[in-house]
Amino acid sequence: MTTSAFDHPWLGGLFADDAMADIWSSDTQLAHMTAFEAAWSRALGEHVLGDKNVGEAAAKAIEAMSFDVDDIRAGLGKDGVPIPRMVAQMKAAAGTTVSDAGAVHKGATSQDVVDTALVLTLRETSFLIAGRLMELETSLKTLEAKFGDRPMMGRTRMQAATPITVRDRIEAWRRPVATHLERLDQLRPRVEVVQIGGASGDRKALGAHADAVVADVAKALGLAPNDKAWHAMRDSVAEYASFLSLVSGTLGKIGQDMCLMAQQGIDELRMSGGGGSSAMPHKQNPVLAELLVTLARFNATQISGMHQSLVHEQERSGAAWSLEWMLLPQMAQATGRGLAAAIDLCTRIERIGAAD
Amino acid sequence: MTTSAFDHPWLGGLFADDAMADIWSSDTQLAHMTAFEAAWSRALGEHVLGDKNVGEAAAKAIEAMSFDVDDIRAGLGKDGVPIPRMVAQMKAAAGTTVSDAGAVHKGATSQDVVDTALVLTLRETSFLIAGRLMELETSLKTLEAKFGDRPMMGRTRMQAATPITVRDRIEAWRRPVATHLERLDQLRPRVEVVQIGGASGDRKALGAHADAVVADVAKALGLAPNDKAWHAMRDSVAEYASFLSLVSGTLGKIGQDMCLMAQQGIDELRMSGGGGSSAMPHKQNPVLAELLVTLARFNATQISGMHQSLVHEQERSGAAWSLEWMLLPQMAQATGRGLAAAIDLCTRIERIGAAD
Amino acid sequence: MTTSAFDHPWLGGLFADDAMADIWSSDTQLAHMTAFEAAWSRALGEHVLGDKNVGEAAAKAIEAMSFDVDDIRAGLGKDGVPIPRMVAQMKAAAGTTVSDAGAVHKGATSQDVVDTALVLTLRETSFLIAGRLMELETSLKTLEAKFGDRPMMGRTRMQAATPITVRDRIEAWRRPVATHLERLDQLRPRVEVVQIGGASGDRKALGAHADAVVADVAKALGLAPNDKAWHAMRDSVAEYASFLSLVSGTLGKIGQDMCLMAQQGIDELRMSGGGGSSAMPHKQNPVLAELLVTLARFNATQISGMHQSLVHEQERSGAAWSLEWMLLPQMAQATGRGLAAAIDLCTRIERIGAAD
Amino acid sequence: MTTSAFDHPWLGGLFADDAMADIWSSDTQLAHMTAFEAAWSRALGEHVLGDKNVGEAAAKAIEAMSFDVDDIRAGLGKDGVPIPRMVAQMKAAAGTTVSDAGAVHKGATSQDVVDTALVLTLRETSFLIAGRLMELETSLKTLEAKFGDRPMMGRTRMQAATPITVRDRIEAWRRPVATHLERLDQLRPRVEVVQIGGASGDRKALGAHADAVVADVAKALGLAPNDKAWHAMRDSVAEYASFLSLVSGTLGKIGQDMCLMAQQGIDELRMSGGGGSSAMPHKQNPVLAELLVTLARFNATQISGMHQSLVHEQERSGAAWSLEWMLLPQMAQATGRGLAAAIDLCTRIERIGAAD
Repeated sequence: MTTSAFDHPWLGGLFADDAMADIWSSDTQLAHMTAFEAAWSRALGEHVLGDKNVGEAAAKAIEAMSFDVDDIRAGLGKDGVPIPRMVAQMKAAAGTTVSDAGAVHKGATSQDVVDTALVLTLRETSFLIAGRLMELETSLKTLEAKFGDRPMMGRTRMQAATPITVRDRIEAWRRPVATHLERLDQLRPRVEVVQIGGASGDRKALGAHADAVVADVAKALGLAPNDKAWHAMRDSVAEYASFLSLVSGTLGKIGQDMCLMAQQGIDELRMSGGGGSSAMPHKQNPVLAELLVTLARFNATQISGMHQSLVHEQERSGAAWSLEWMLLPQMAQATGRGLAAAIDLCTRIERIGAAD
Repeated sequence: MTTSAFDHPWLGGLFADDAMADIWSSDTQLAHMTAFEAAWSRALGEHVLGDKNVGEAAAKAIEAMSFDVDDIRAGLGKDGVPIPRMVAQMKAAAGTTVSDAGAVHKGATSQDVVDTALVLTLRETSFLIAGRLMELETSLKTLEAKFGDRPMMGRTRMQAATPITVRDRIEAWRRPVATHLERLDQLRPRVEVVQIGGASGDRKALGAHADAVVADVAKALGLAPNDKAWHAMRDSVAEYASFLSLVSGTLGKIGQDMCLMAQQGIDELRMSGGGGSSAMPHKQNPVLAELLVTLARFNATQISGMHQSLVHEQERSGAAWSLEWMLLPQMAQATGRGLAAAIDLCTRIERIGAAD
Repeated sequence: MTTSAFDHPWLGGLFADDAMADIWSSDTQLAHMTAFEAAWSRALGEHVLGDKNVGEAAAKAIEAMSFDVDDIRAGLGKDGVPIPRMVAQMKAAAGTTVSDAGAVHKGATSQDVVDTALVLTLRETSFLIAGRLMELETSLKTLEAKFGDRPMMGRTRMQAATPITVRDRIEAWRRPVATHLERLDQLRPRVEVVQIGGASGDRKALGAHADAVVADVAKALGLAPNDKAWHAMRDSVAEYASFLSLVSGTLGKIGQDMCLMAQQGIDELRMSGGGGSSAMPHKQNPVLAELLVTLARFNATQISGMHQSLVHEQERSGAAWSLEWMLLPQMAQATGRGLAAAIDLCTRIERIGAAD
Repeated sequence: MTTSAFDHPWLGGLFADDAMADIWSSDTQLAHMTAFEAAWSRALGEHVLGDKNVGEAAAKAIEAMSFDVDDIRAGLGKDGVPIPRMVAQMKAAAGTTVSDAGAVHKGATSQDVVDTALVLTLRETSFLIAGRLMELETSLKTLEAKFGDRPMMGRTRMQAATPITVRDRIEAWRRPVATHLERLDQLRPRVEVVQIGGASGDRKALGAHADAVVADVAKALGLAPNDKAWHAMRDSVAEYASFLSLVSGTLGKIGQDMCLMAQQGIDELRMSGGGGSSAMPHKQNPVLAELLVTLARFNATQISGMHQSLVHEQERSGAAWSLEWMLLPQMAQATGRGLAAAIDLCTRIERIGAAD
């Protein structure tokens, strides 16, 4: 039973991005949450409990265990977060001695685990997107090298304007791709920060050891330490979502241009591998180019909800937080899929510019 | 690998609505598309081919076959629609004689199958929603009967205003529920119409038999006949989506009110079964009430994209059409889940109004 | 100083709809609020005070006075609503005797005045829109009569599909127009209802006279009486906004089709009066057709905020209510302007279908 | 006749931001367009015409003239842009000799003027916003100094969690403010770039002089030169809009928190100057705090349309471009007004934290 086009048995053939889906999969999320909890136990042992061994024992148990996902699911319906059930399972796995020593999750809370895991996912997302942005830039340069000098009609307001070259058109596709890489570089340090705060975000449960615990956990996870819980400040998460939608928006322009160029009567672009029609087998539909438009408009829709989520009341909003869970994973997959489709499209182009 | 909160292994414990997910599942979609194709074959046999037997043979074969979903998925990536591959499979299943006789899909096209199947799904969605709206109305009446006479502080602009009764508050929850049923009654005839048009929507392939074929297919599926392909007129689909979001918006108001009433210091509502916290096991979090707010804001986000899809160019827009596929199933499930959660919430309420 | 394209000194030349702007102008709003307050005073005199003369005196004074808009503006910054200052002005105008007798605004509150005035504005909006929908339907029928039989290429996924006639294309523009009239008929009774509730919406201040007062005020204003304050139930207002966006969405499809048809190389539509370019005076830009797309996407954007406003907490949400004030007037003007532009466009069309 | 809450005679008392409205006023826009055209004429004289005097004469005439706004407005309805009529007026003002020499607007086009003027407006917007962000940061630090040590109940999921201090709450308001300044610093160089491209954006009309002309114009206006027309790449404009909405989102969280803190029964915040009610003069409504929520949700709505505008087809999209004109000015004013209101709110706070 599937509600999402990304996960759908056959729609997935068009919408799914396996690599991005893997990054946002529940298995990866679980792995990230496990990594947090293990690092947490080790830091507790080292700094809070004064007993590295008990921390190590807890961490080892957490790393070795299999979570009972059905139980976590049942907990979600009740608690709204996966952590209470996960903690119970981790304590059971670590055994009474270790748990009673306070080496499991003690001083942490749901948002610490879930949001730090999110940040790890966003870091992987950034890698995938950066790599594909670079690849797309190369693909567009290749097209430019091949077809750039050919003449083409410039079109403004959907009317023929003055002659340009294919290079002019492609540059308008390629330059924002480079700018997106610049944006991502500037954005990453704001996002790749561990979230640690405890119950109301003030780290009180860690007492004087807070900075040391944070430093250790951050280091273990490859993130920057935070000097204050950022859980109730969602600006960087919303900024990341905005970045995703800027990328897919650029791709949407490319797709829309390609659809217009491929029209009969315009004939400024020829590509192979267009889609067929059940009624008209001769047609060459620009399915991937249309997909870029669809994904751009999809993300432009979702971004609104991510900005609504900035109204995140008090020390934690259940309502605003879980709205992000509904929107952000799909935005990431839409962006990833768009990039992959755009790269794919570039390889299929047989001609840009007027037919000879 | 799951991107949607509805389909997620543990988030689904909060977000999933099994009954609604079933209505929108790929199995049900396939069943609806099969029903269309079988009815189509029978109508072709009767009216176009002048041979009921060949139509019946095709229909039987289609009803009996199992579709190769992997093949359909592969086709999606190429064609952007599931139908070309499904048609090939149906023809193979029906055999050469029947296929060559033109008894399979002939004169129909992708949008006929996909949109008629959508309409069948919307009809089932309407049944589920209508039933739950009635159930919620009853639940709210029960609360009113129990607690309606109790005094409560009226609150405007989040400030105490003048005393009201619990009845006044509940009526503002209940009355829109009844109005939504009225809206649904008016909307259904605009939606529950078969889509038949053929390649460019003009039914030309059916010639003089068009009305007879449409009448038969519509009757077989329990839908109204169309006298013109409506595929490129998406107003009723967008109207349906707007209806879904109106319903979830009403539920969001209920949820927001309940969250505010359940605050310590306000204490106007006590419910059982609130969610726990990993750091503060004593808390009773109003998880389901927050969920109603989340789902309302989710649908209020998605509705924008559904209205963007109204700009559906020419005889069929691949881009605008597939945007609907990304949005509408989730809006339906958000609405269904919201209704179920609201009904559930009503049963958990132990007190509304000031504590004794 | 103007922030809105509708009110802008030169952008208004494209975006403004004078008739709709008039309906939503502050002068009209003031007139509607005045009408409410005068009817209220008369009803108070008749039913609550048992002295028709004092009610009539108050009503006459209210009808005759000029409001000090600067004072109301100053009050807005403090109170968030115009009514407290208006009431003070009305009392001053009515004089001490009449005011002290309780014949001015007594038992009413801000939302009663503002929302009843809104409903009067929506009624006028409905008249204007209904008239223009009918006019547009006629214009499209005229085009159909003139060009309907001409051949045209059907286009799906922006690719040539199979030949159709111009009639097929125009029907996809015209039919939703008729359906919108049907929707408006069904929607109007849900909207055209007086809002009367008093401080927390329970009419308590009117005691046993509530029904009589409501009946009188409703009758004076030509609205249906309400049997319960609907102020905190925004579903019909959001439904109205959805209706507006459905209309502009239909127009957006028409505009997008026309832009595509007017392309050089496609040449399926010729119109007069297209816009010029500062650099290319020979161009005939399809400015009004593009405008229809812009207005459709504008309303599809705004509709999201109107649905967010459904989460209207408690007896009155200052935040959600004033969000409507920011969105709905512009949606109405976008819809009105779109209809006027579409009707105008129809008269400029010199040819649809392939050139001879 | 006013459609926008910002420009409305009395709603403006709550929504208007005079300083921001001035930056986005038509007078300022005209001044920016004039500055572009004058710099353009001078650069033409210097580099293209080889006659500094004729360029200077044109520039002087342009700087001295008064534009006929009614004529520009009439042109808008026809051309969709203000420039053709402005050019005609400028040529008339410059006189035949200068105009015929090609010293007025020659080689430029609508988007060069309108988008460069936009960039000048965005630069002023950035100054105003940066100043207010710094001011708000100071105001919040002052509140922290005054009330930071006071105890307060931490609240998660709208339920009492564990005790925190007022400082913890205020830090969640203040830190994003500092981050927004960092974002603005990174974003400005991407935005403050002159737009020069000519008819189809390829600068062909300037020939070998293109770089020199661009350099001169950019220098005269205090912007960076562009080495390629960016007109059809809207990513930086959409990024700027996203930035605006991130700022107003942070303010929305502050406003929502304040509304919740000011509730009777919670009583964690006392402020002066709250709004009155026509029915309950004793109330102290948190009008400005609610306004912050409204403005956040307003911008979160508009941002969707700005991202839709990224699908900007070919060398210039009339439809996507003019959608920006409808959205961005209001987003700027919403952000400016939010900042001013937040600063104002800080001065009105008499207590944060539990009452003594």
